[in-house]
Amino acid sequence: MNEILIERDRDIATVILNRPDKLNAMTRPMWRGLGEAFEALSAEDDIRCIIVRGAGTRAFSPGNDIAEFATERSNKAQGIDYGRDMYRTAAQIAACRHPVVAQIHGICVGGGLEIAALADLRICGESSRFGAPIKNLGLVMAYAEMAPLVQLVGRSIALEILLEGRIFDAQEARDKGLVTRIVADDQVAAETLATARRIADGAPLVARWHKQFARRLGNPAPISDIENDACFDCFDTEDFRIGYAAFLAKQPPTFTGH
Amino acid sequence: MNEILIERDRDIATVILNRPDKLNAMTRPMWRGLGEAFEALSAEDDIRCIIVRGAGTRAFSPGNDIAEFATERSNKAQGIDYGRDMYRTAAQIAACRHPVVAQIHGICVGGGLEIAALADLRICGESSRFGAPIKNLGLVMAYAEMAPLVQLVGRSIALEILLEGRIFDAQEARDKGLVTRIVADDQVAAETLATARRIADGAPLVARWHKQFARRLGNPAPISDIENDACFDCFDTEDFRIGYAAFLAKQPPTFTGH
Amino acid sequence: MNEILIERDRDIATVILNRPDKLNAMTRPMWRGLGEAFEALSAEDDIRCIIVRGAGTRAFSPGNDIAEFATERSNKAQGIDYGRDMYRTAAQIAACRHPVVAQIHGICVGGGLEIAALADLRICGESSRFGAPIKNLGLVMAYAEMAPLVQLVGRSIALEILLEGRIFDAQEARDKGLVTRIVADDQVAAETLATARRIADGAPLVARWHKQFARRLGNPAPISDIENDACFDCFDTEDFRIGYAAFLAKQPPTFTGH
Repeated sequence: MNEILIERDRDIATVILNRPDKLNAMTRPMWRGLGEAFEALSAEDDIRCIIVRGAGTRAFSPGNDIAEFATERSNKAQGIDYGRDMYRTAAQIAACRHPVVAQIHGICVGGGLEIAALADLRICGESSRFGAPIKNLGLVMAYAEMAPLVQLVGRSIALEILLEGRIFDAQEARDKGLVTRIVADDQVAAETLATARRIADGAPLVARWHKQFARRLGNPAPISDIENDACFDCFDTEDFRIGYAAFLAKQPPTFTGH
Repeated sequence: MNEILIERDRDIATVILNRPDKLNAMTRPMWRGLGEAFEALSAEDDIRCIIVRGAGTRAFSPGNDIAEFATERSNKAQGIDYGRDMYRTAAQIAACRHPVVAQIHGICVGGGLEIAALADLRICGESSRFGAPIKNLGLVMAYAEMAPLVQLVGRSIALEILLEGRIFDAQEARDKGLVTRIVADDQVAAETLATARRIADGAPLVARWHKQFARRLGNPAPISDIENDACFDCFDTEDFRIGYAAFLAKQPPTFTGH
Repeated sequence: MNEILIERDRDIATVILNRPDKLNAMTRPMWRGLGEAFEALSAEDDIRCIIVRGAGTRAFSPGNDIAEFATERSNKAQGIDYGRDMYRTAAQIAACRHPVVAQIHGICVGGGLEIAALADLRICGESSRFGAPIKNLGLVMAYAEMAPLVQLVGRSIALEILLEGRIFDAQEARDKGLVTRIVADDQVAAETLATARRIADGAPLVARWHKQFARRLGNPAPISDIENDACFDCFDTEDFRIGYAAFLAKQPPTFTGH
């Protein structure tokens, strides 16, 4: 069975962490497969939004499978090696051109939380649970894992999560800025799809530029004149003609991605 | 009719986006006038707080007037040219020495939201509505427009707003960190004035220093010894004598700005 | 009477601002003593968490004792000199290897708020009150004082606090991100201790690494390969063996700090 599945519904792709008998606990092959899935989907021009979720509704993912520690992560050298796979995947998700929405059912902990933090939006159910209790294992969240969490919730909340190691509920996750919105458990899939649809109905080049700009603004180097001027490439796109005409006609636009 | 009005009430100035028949939609001359208003007021030593608002109570501003696209923003070259006016204005508001409070009635969308994000505090009414649905037009929010929004609410929420393009209510705006506080619709003017009064009653040089320091701390370059020592210039001001004496006398201080 | 007290309960130390007759208002000797206390405790390997609190339950601290202004802070040169003591203390708290939890009863204002902002977590009671009304004194919060506040709540909220100078309640402090959590007034000590216990029960090296990593991520310089690889030192610790064995045995781990 393929433990990373890709499903498609027109312009929306869904990447599934598919190991439901283990609550979608991540293994090294899954990390690799997850990164490859995002890299491949990122290259496709016809995709406008990617949903990432766990199989079933019991868990997004509880993080890394502890069973691998004995063989794959038993010392520093192995840890570095395994970590490189995780970081490449994190970089592949972060670099994805298309907007990413995490559909979170149930448990979203440790490495699962890290994957969710790499998405652009996070929709969860009322009974979802969050945390990163790795202090109980004697392990740290390395820079490449911690940075997206700090980016999302700030240094202080990220540190609270790691120092206390509590598992907390959806409401606290929202108060902490970890999730974009909470819906009833049986509405998580519908709200995620509606969100993906809202995103996919916008001009796709615009979504990609906004992702790219948001990332660039995280770099303190001054924006150059060339970069500033490139923000106006949108005025020469076919989609601007379409959007403008639709606005005047009071019709919803149908964008082409050109 | 002047589409950017300046009103004064002693040490508080109010800048009004004054095009109520178009819900205060911004035109190029208005952007220019807005920047000139802030530059002029910034230079005045007797001003202690600036309120920025739209005329009437239906809207702060819905953003740029779409009617201008046909003639002023129909391609990349025009977009760059128009954008330069917007960015100069954004820089003039951001560089204003005096504290700025946005008084938000009704619609605060797109370019209107960008103006509000450049203020230091934002007071809105319960029925205010927010958003930046430019993905429907096929246009992006350029770096200079997006940066104040990212500064205000963080990268993730800024991106959510731009990718989904939803219009959302005051409560969600507050949850997102977009507004400082919400009051009943008929209290927006009174609370804004009370806020401006609280600010204006403080030592004016202190307010200017705090604005300058907050901005400087956004620059990751280390603070120099000279900069650190300049933080103590306040101890040689007349206003410190006044503030200290008032504290001992248990009286409210009356600062002179010296 | 020693105005900075250190109490110990096994692996948890409590630093007390001990001037209850003055609501624990800070004096220059107290700033020095506070920094020295943190520097000394930081060096102790057996400490796993530090609580910082004011004596009694009326106040954490209202900030600096105004009485000192006449003799110690009456002009710029004295202000710089006094400030150096404050900043050294702030640097000593920030550099502390061990997690720090602020236990906040009552008033937490000005310099008191600055001390609380330097802690990693902040637990307060429902009747706690916060603010930094130094604009009424004609004085500024210097860069070294303002930076931890900006780090904690962002530039916009820090500026709101300083420009308006309002004193606000615990709920608003939590909404602003100033406090980690609010409990009933008579539960502040118990919840702080439970939090410190959760932290202290984790692997101590992990807590120290997480603090160090969180701080490092505030520096925009790219993380080097050497730094990234050092994140895996945890895999060679005794505590990882202990944590992993405890996980498999479904027992709580008892870490040694090695």
